[in-house]
Amino acid sequence: MPAKFSRLSADDYFNGIRAGDRMILSRAITLVESTLLTDKAISDDLLERILPFTGQARRIGITGVPGVGKSTFIERFGQLLVREGEKLAILTIDPTSSKSHGSILGDKTRMDVLSKLEEVYIRPSAAGSALGGVANATREAMLLCEAAGFTTILIETVGVGQSETSVRNMVDFFLLLMLAGAGDELQGIKKGIMEMADAIAITKSDGANIQESEKARISYQNALHLFPPDESGWITEVLTTSALDGAGFEEIIGVINRYYEHMESSGRLSALRNHQKIQWLNDLIDYLQRRQFLATPGMKEALKLQEQAVLKGTTSPYKAARTLVELAWNV
Amino acid sequence: MPAKFSRLSADDYFNGIRAGDRMILSRAITLVESTLLTDKAISDDLLERILPFTGQARRIGITGVPGVGKSTFIERFGQLLVREGEKLAILTIDPTSSKSHGSILGDKTRMDVLSKLEEVYIRPSAAGSALGGVANATREAMLLCEAAGFTTILIETVGVGQSETSVRNMVDFFLLLMLAGAGDELQGIKKGIMEMADAIAITKSDGANIQESEKARISYQNALHLFPPDESGWITEVLTTSALDGAGFEEIIGVINRYYEHMESSGRLSALRNHQKIQWLNDLIDYLQRRQFLATPGMKEALKLQEQAVLKGTTSPYKAARTLVELAWNV
Repeated sequence: MPAKFSRLSADDYFNGIRAGDRMILSRAITLVESTLLTDKAISDDLLERILPFTGQARRIGITGVPGVGKSTFIERFGQLLVREGEKLAILTIDPTSSKSHGSILGDKTRMDVLSKLEEVYIRPSAAGSALGGVANATREAMLLCEAAGFTTILIETVGVGQSETSVRNMVDFFLLLMLAGAGDELQGIKKGIMEMADAIAITKSDGANIQESEKARISYQNALHLFPPDESGWITEVLTTSALDGAGFEEIIGVINRYYEHMESSGRLSALRNHQKIQWLNDLIDYLQRRQFLATPGMKEALKLQEQAVLKGTTSPYKAARTLVELAWNV
Repeated sequence: MPAKFSRLSADDYFNGIRAGDRMILSRAITLVESTLLTDKAISDDLLERILPFTGQARRIGITGVPGVGKSTFIERFGQLLVREGEKLAILTIDPTSSKSHGSILGDKTRMDVLSKLEEVYIRPSAAGSALGGVANATREAMLLCEAAGFTTILIETVGVGQSETSVRNMVDFFLLLMLAGAGDELQGIKKGIMEMADAIAITKSDGANIQESEKARISYQNALHLFPPDESGWITEVLTTSALDGAGFEEIIGVINRYYEHMESSGRLSALRNHQKIQWLNDLIDYLQRRQFLATPGMKEALKLQEQAVLKGTTSPYKAARTLVELAWNV
């Protein structure tokens, strides 16, 4: 094996990942996150080689505002998954965290038991990059984890940013964690996220909170029945759970299993994943085109000037857009 | 005045619109819908000239599935607005209708009384064009109507397509019409639309339906209280209405007035509209870039091949996107 900080070839990465080498996997994720052109060539190669070994894992998104008990939930729920035989990769996206390695240590501390298990791999996404970049890097990190043999991928987001739609578009199942006592806690949740959820779990349902949690569960379940089901006909389920005593964990696994049965019947899961792939391709085209656009010499200044003119009402958005796009494409 | 089918200059359009000439207004909307380059030059000019005369109208979106009674509601509600002194422009977007003038006649028939009122202008958007195009044309049609002196613009969509987000992004207030008896009727509504609504009106609340409508109203109001408010702090209101006897019309006007009071305090309305303008500019940049991308010789075939490779798993979406974008930008 090459020394720790030497350059690896696509072959080295491929063999290391397929052999389940965590250090190589981590370096491969750093590679796909990299924006260096030399790295891109290797990561393109690597991704193409691992693709045949991807797709077999369950892809689950978990979101919820800070304070809802996300890490505690994952720490305990993850242990149950491992006891059931899963190999678990946890990818976290926190746009509010800094780029420093502090967040990596932070995540490992937050998930103290999990981080020491051999069956578990925890990896925060590099925050601070452009959204298209983060979302893409997370998708590719997910594929790398699948190729490394993980059978369940949990992707965690904070539920207040813009990454939830991207995550919804890369997972099979999207779980929203919420607190009982909707009033105040709701303030932090972004509008639209509840309608993305395949299941909602009311957390901290233990001790004196059990009754209130159950009341919240019924309210949400009734409310969600008034909302349209998704295209597959799945209706969002609402449960209560406690990371303290593991209440509701079996039920959550039950919902996930029922969801996969529902999706795997009549080929809905592969249709969903195909749809996600094409969506992903198109998002990336838009993202790369936007990057190319912004790389046009003088574009940032020109964009700012046109934005100001649009706000002042001295030009129409269409004319402004056309001027800028013509500048970028040199037509 | 120039003869009916001669070419008009930007000046002719401008003067005609400002003088409230309906025929000129209609031709100007056709002009902004046009994709001809020669038309674009004139419409760019025209839009720049009318911009100072826009922005004073209330911009209201109305959506609901077919069968909810949208046209009947607008036909009757519109008459009330006119009696209250409004000059009313109604722009309809129906992506399912054909490009023929049949839809224009159709809309005028559906709104029999309104279409004969001097204070009312009804115009369907050219369907069949690309979404970016339709949305942009509708936005520009709205501005032309404002410059022509209309004080309320109603933009109607069918609630089952993809145009609702675009419409949400161009109006101040978004009204969703629904039927009581949520079960079956919900099937047609797209997930996510309810969370966009500033108000929901349960239609056909008359005769034997009153009780059920009131029950539905309470259920929805309770349900929506569990959902996060929008960024401005507005909580969606739910009402019942009947186009048969005008029940609820005054209440709907009351909600709209309260909404504008809420938004006009602390400058929220101008912040929303500024946000919409910048969003619009950025949507148009993406749209025009996509059009430029697709105009690359051989791109449609190349895109199809890459999509197939992505679905087969022989290439990664990132590599496919990069290959296509490099082809388009010739880098």
